[in-house]
Amino acid sequence: MNIRLMPRVEDIVQKNIAKSNAIVIDMLRATSVITTALYNGARGVIPVLTVDEAMAAREKCSDVVLGGERRGLKINGFDLGNSPLEYTPSNIKDKTIIMTTSNGTRAIKGCESANHIYIGSMLNGKSVAARASLDDADISIVCAGTLGKFSLDDFICAGYIIDELMKVKSYVLDDISFAAHYMYDANKKDVEGIIKNASHYNYLVSIGLEGDIKYCCRMGILDIVPEYKDGIISNPF
Amino acid sequence: MNIRLMPRVEDIVQKNIAKSNAIVIDMLRATSVITTALYNGARGVIPVLTVDEAMAAREKCSDVVLGGERRGLKINGFDLGNSPLEYTPSNIKDKTIIMTTSNGTRAIKGCESANHIYIGSMLNGKSVAARASLDDADISIVCAGTLGKFSLDDFICAGYIIDELMKVKSYVLDDISFAAHYMYDANKKDVEGIIKNASHYNYLVSIGLEGDIKYCCRMGILDIVPEYKDGIISNPF
Repeated sequence: MNIRLMPRVEDIVQKNIAKSNAIVIDMLRATSVITTALYNGARGVIPVLTVDEAMAAREKCSDVVLGGERRGLKINGFDLGNSPLEYTPSNIKDKTIIMTTSNGTRAIKGCESANHIYIGSMLNGKSVAARASLDDADISIVCAGTLGKFSLDDFICAGYIIDELMKVKSYVLDDISFAAHYMYDANKKDVEGIIKNASHYNYLVSIGLEGDIKYCCRMGILDIVPEYKDGIISNPF
Repeated sequence: MNIRLMPRVEDIVQKNIAKSNAIVIDMLRATSVITTALYNGARGVIPVLTVDEAMAAREKCSDVVLGGERRGLKINGFDLGNSPLEYTPSNIKDKTIIMTTSNGTRAIKGCESANHIYIGSMLNGKSVAARASLDDADISIVCAGTLGKFSLDDFICAGYIIDELMKVKSYVLDDISFAAHYMYDANKKDVEGIIKNASHYNYLVSIGLEGDIKYCCRMGILDIVPEYKDGIISNPF
């Protein structure tokens, strides 16, 4: 069994994704938001690519909440932004979230040829690794990146999930999976310290979101594995 | 001034390359061959994309040597393969080399919008960094990769050249340049040791080319900066 890492949405190779179990990572912050929202009792998360699609989906469904960001900030007319700390039970329990983000949504939709599409973050890294390694399938780790660029935060998170996968089973790593795992392993005692070198980290700090980052760097605290299927992310387990 | 790293030919972004000084890396082995050949007195190296182009170029020029590889092996009808150890003065002095390789040639030709296109390897890492940082231009580091895949050997070599660039001048690193520099810095006392984890390293060992690799891992031993201009790589300095 192989682990292949695609560091940006733009690097998705359909022939690698097909028949694999995909784990999508956008740790700052889309996949951390999704994981938190489902843990806190949301019914499901529907990822859409555009603001117009989100607005149109609200017309069709009841009990929905619109969430997401552009340039890290809440979208005009939306209920919630892209801070996982906003997705509290009182805001989202039993609601369906319609979500659009700059990078994460595209990454999830790019994996539609996979066997399973799991949502990964630092928060649920241990659980998602345990689930994705249950059957004998190759693993595709798809990092969202940031607006077409490699993002160090997603790369370190990928390294953490690879570490958890390798505790369960012996996988063959491709060169870039090896590099991600190496960098995680060398920094696992201070993950936030290495992520401080990410340009997206510094952008989020500059718009006042340091609290979000601290939360998103917590490893293995949520035992939940969101899965995307038929257009909706839910917690089927 | 910025350093941007493109880890594979497929990641070349023309708007980043334009007006920058590009350093092309295919350390195992195309750019190590080019550096060695010019150091040993070749007149120039003409990179071509196909075997047919190489054969046709031989018809037009005198004093030429055909070199290159497919799947790591010498091409049928060519004079030399892709081992830098073959490019001795007795084989190539005052000759023009027509060269086609799987990855490196495409990487060089992909950079044609840059201000300068320098050829980088472990062998000339210090010299190429000194030259590329002479003028106030951003630096694009373009790794060839291996048949469309990220290659750990090129990544570590990029990290070494970034380290040499940063000794000369203060650059802003993008996230992937930071990662390459981090991995080099953590392994600079045993570069070959970390490169042993590259799948291309193991492929080359499997076809008996361990000697080539040992040579290609030697850092800063050749004080030469090959430059590609008007279709030919030469040593203009």
